[in-house]
Amino acid sequence: MVLPEPGLPARVRIHEVGARDGLQNEKATVPTEVKAEFVHRLADAGLTTIEATSFVHPKWVPQLADAEALMPLLGDLDGVRLPVLVPNERGLDRALALGVREIAVFGSATESFAKANLNRTVDESLAMFEPVVAKARDAGASVRGYLSMCFGDPWEGAVPVDQVAGVAKRLADLGCDELSLGDTIGVATPGHVTALLTTLGEAGLPAARLAVHFHDTYGQALANTLAALRFGVTTVDASAGGLGGCPYAKSATGNLATEDLVWMLTGLGIDTGVDLARLTATSVWMAGHLGRPSPSRTVRALSHEE
Amino acid sequence: MVLPEPGLPARVRIHEVGARDGLQNEKATVPTEVKAEFVHRLADAGLTTIEATSFVHPKWVPQLADAEALMPLLGDLDGVRLPVLVPNERGLDRALALGVREIAVFGSATESFAKANLNRTVDESLAMFEPVVAKARDAGASVRGYLSMCFGDPWEGAVPVDQVAGVAKRLADLGCDELSLGDTIGVATPGHVTALLTTLGEAGLPAARLAVHFHDTYGQALANTLAALRFGVTTVDASAGGLGGCPYAKSATGNLATEDLVWMLTGLGIDTGVDLARLTATSVWMAGHLGRPSPSRTVRALSHEE
Repeated sequence: MVLPEPGLPARVRIHEVGARDGLQNEKATVPTEVKAEFVHRLADAGLTTIEATSFVHPKWVPQLADAEALMPLLGDLDGVRLPVLVPNERGLDRALALGVREIAVFGSATESFAKANLNRTVDESLAMFEPVVAKARDAGASVRGYLSMCFGDPWEGAVPVDQVAGVAKRLADLGCDELSLGDTIGVATPGHVTALLTTLGEAGLPAARLAVHFHDTYGQALANTLAALRFGVTTVDASAGGLGGCPYAKSATGNLATEDLVWMLTGLGIDTGVDLARLTATSVWMAGHLGRPSPSRTVRALSHEE
Repeated sequence: MVLPEPGLPARVRIHEVGARDGLQNEKATVPTEVKAEFVHRLADAGLTTIEATSFVHPKWVPQLADAEALMPLLGDLDGVRLPVLVPNERGLDRALALGVREIAVFGSATESFAKANLNRTVDESLAMFEPVVAKARDAGASVRGYLSMCFGDPWEGAVPVDQVAGVAKRLADLGCDELSLGDTIGVATPGHVTALLTTLGEAGLPAARLAVHFHDTYGQALANTLAALRFGVTTVDASAGGLGGCPYAKSATGNLATEDLVWMLTGLGIDTGVDLARLTATSVWMAGHLGRPSPSRTVRALSHEE
């Protein structure tokens, strides 16, 4: 039974982050061959944008130290975009050398997190991204800009929407094709989402250029997604099986689970192209490799794990 | 930072079901004194409607076999409503003898669940409720009618909104002051909620007379709640700490957790009167008695259990 609510989009593109954002925040390190199979299974399940890995220095993210080995194993998946995260020019050069055609940079809306995560001020981090974005675009690669801590920050509390819009505008002006608004600690609620999207629209950043990246730390991710969809956002980040804890809130629950998102969107009559049974089977399989059950409610319900 | 969305109510009344619906579906049986302390702690946390127990035959729900012993321990909590579930006239008489002033009956929108849960057809169960509701009202008690399987049914699949509206109308016409629409297996999505509420309104049942009772089995409960709030519903059922598994879906996750609900409502600037820190402490305390961690994401995040 398909019962859409008025004003919602007919189709949503899911930006799958499990292989990068998910695995980067799991304690267990997964063998390269398993990661490659994971990406292939995600593509088989119908996902068309699969963030594959990160070219950050292995010292900072040992879980993804095998980026160079992984990319050739992925091959050329027909119709599937395989963006990768790059922290700086050196990471970009490594990615471009492997034929990557889509990259992402990872910025912060707050000074505290910029300092904690990038060891730079917000100004310094934007200065670092500038040549990365320019070089990527010169090489014909499209660029996504992640903006973290868009709602709350563990050190600063609630983050003013004008502050977020200011940093978002500068990141967009560097040349990012898309901005992904991250609720890194999962504290946002739907009214806050609408307020931020309104402010961003007024700042010249329409919903069509934005993605939302919600964490389910406080169980709010789907309600927030619904608010964003109503506002016209059609790109939603999610992580298969809810992979990835939240390092900045002591909770096993981090990213919105792709399965929970697909359940809602399917019920709303919104096309995602995803085969939920295949995706759930993939998440159960990956949970076996990680040695912990999936935190996704839909995965648990459909797989009868408990 | 309070950022309400337009069209939402200023205040929501939470109908707390943890002590009844929650404990009735937990494996562990809690001592009567612990139940009494639980209800007192819920009241201390600011909840004003706390469903206390059920006067069903102990053979069917052994976890709540101590209803007669429990009620006198609760005393007269100032400003707090303490409804109880009654399955039939015998249960009603037991409750009224203890001074109960608010009762609930538990019906089904589908024949399959009426048969499985009540061993009656829908017609037969409504006939059973008729004298119960009449006698309760004669005694000055208010009556809530639960209607389960309002969205999906494990045997019948999706439940047509017209079928739900038909049973709901008959239950209301018996004299129920309020109807609580249950998504017993947690499969609903927001568009389905809006569609059902629309159909109920057309059938003469306005939002003011309705409550929603969502299960979080597939992670949809808060998104569904948001859809109901937009429609004008101002009474929302929830269970402290998410107590109560879901016996009809093999998942540890049943009722919407009150804490997750309060987090969303507070962020939306909607008054609930609930002190979230006190409520979370109560759920952590109860989880200790039950020997399993709370499935509430907000409880986990705030209590740093993991």
